[in-house]
Amino acid sequence: MCELLGMSANVPTDICFSFAGLMRRGGGSGPHRDGWGVAFYEGRGLRCFHDPNPCHSSAIAKLIEQYPIKSENVICHIRQANVGGVSLANTHPFTRELWGQYWAFAHNGQLAGFNPDQGPYTPVGDTDSEAIFCHLLNNLARRYSELPSLAEIADTLSQCCAPLRALGVCNLMLSNGDWLFTLCTSKLHWITRRAPFGPAVLSDTDLEIDFQQHTTRTDVVTVIATEPLTSNEQWRAYETGEWRLWEKGETKIKGHCY
Amino acid sequence: MCELLGMSANVPTDICFSFAGLMRRGGGSGPHRDGWGVAFYEGRGLRCFHDPNPCHSSAIAKLIEQYPIKSENVICHIRQANVGGVSLANTHPFTRELWGQYWAFAHNGQLAGFNPDQGPYTPVGDTDSEAIFCHLLNNLARRYSELPSLAEIADTLSQCCAPLRALGVCNLMLSNGDWLFTLCTSKLHWITRRAPFGPAVLSDTDLEIDFQQHTTRTDVVTVIATEPLTSNEQWRAYETGEWRLWEKGETKIKGHCY
Repeated sequence: MCELLGMSANVPTDICFSFAGLMRRGGGSGPHRDGWGVAFYEGRGLRCFHDPNPCHSSAIAKLIEQYPIKSENVICHIRQANVGGVSLANTHPFTRELWGQYWAFAHNGQLAGFNPDQGPYTPVGDTDSEAIFCHLLNNLARRYSELPSLAEIADTLSQCCAPLRALGVCNLMLSNGDWLFTLCTSKLHWITRRAPFGPAVLSDTDLEIDFQQHTTRTDVVTVIATEPLTSNEQWRAYETGEWRLWEKGETKIKGHCY
Repeated sequence: MCELLGMSANVPTDICFSFAGLMRRGGGSGPHRDGWGVAFYEGRGLRCFHDPNPCHSSAIAKLIEQYPIKSENVICHIRQANVGGVSLANTHPFTRELWGQYWAFAHNGQLAGFNPDQGPYTPVGDTDSEAIFCHLLNNLARRYSELPSLAEIADTLSQCCAPLRALGVCNLMLSNGDWLFTLCTSKLHWITRRAPFGPAVLSDTDLEIDFQQHTTRTDVVTVIATEPLTSNEQWRAYETGEWRLWEKGETKIKGHCY
């Protein structure tokens, strides 16, 4: 299975610490040798890094681990290929523009017999993940000519995601830079860090951080990951079928896909 | 003025040498302190790096200078902001998906009174460059429901570009990964390197390369840049209003916008 990592924060925050933990799983402590990618929102801009090579030996991954790009919304993915060969075109996160905003998407799982809705958004590669992304955007673009309310977005996404659950595993993350939509059909965990901040110790590598030295009292930072990344904190598990739309580190809307 | 750099080759080729020369102009030997970006096609995939910081001091630029990403089509841009603030969203190249292909675009110049055609492609930032890109894609998407012939693409692009000439300076590069379309309304140069390959010396920095050691007899590599990048080779200047569509290092179609 691939691994997902997302962040939602109320202040631009770097993800170096969590990224370092995730990267160790990319062909290091984990079996995910088939590329990795990360998307950072900075204002309305989106900065993406993609590498079809294993992340634990990637020069680009090393750079990002040491380069504190500060963002309020981040989506990161390391890949273990099942559908679709190992190539740059099949490397998550995928991105598109809709309503003058960049949208980014990453997914783990596999769907059987998925028949995506057609529309202006067409996959470039041959993963079912990118097909799901285009399916969601085609549905949004068909229903709304401009950015609707958050409630309408959440409603459309949960309606579109519900039938996917029956087709297989579909853990996903989607963002337009303002918020982060997450769906768990098999495995996803989250932790919200806020004052008083304390130390955190990565599970996969010998690295510890004291968040108190890097934060202010009003910071709220939520990290969402396939598996908990730290060994000394209490992560919470999503329920099966649960979706959460995060904004500024807080769950803004949540529900279940049945 | 911003500076453009493009490459079209018949074999995946790294652009480290030319990139090194261009980067020296980004706040080093040139006045272009307002960010830089580069788009590399690898198969159907597109790898982009964007940085709103000056490239001569950018950690990401240093990485790329030393990291031989091999590509048949590359677009690179360093920016001196005029319209649009310095931000990630305003950093070229811009990218979109059309007909299941990634399209990348960079531009230098300024247009006065430009009224872009509307359509599914909407700018995210506030540069007129991104507005031109969306204008071109909206025109292509309106005329064709799937990828047309190269002649039809070239015809549509040259028709759309002709009125832009009257509005100001519009040097641009556009690619879908198969080819590289280039337009010069004020300044653009090109050089095609093929066997027998020889040495080249950068104008902006103390760097020399012997291409013979990095090529085979059948390689054809064209580099297009605002200003010639080497001091010991004969670059050719585009004529004013001239456009060229490059494929595998050769001019496939060319013409003039009147």
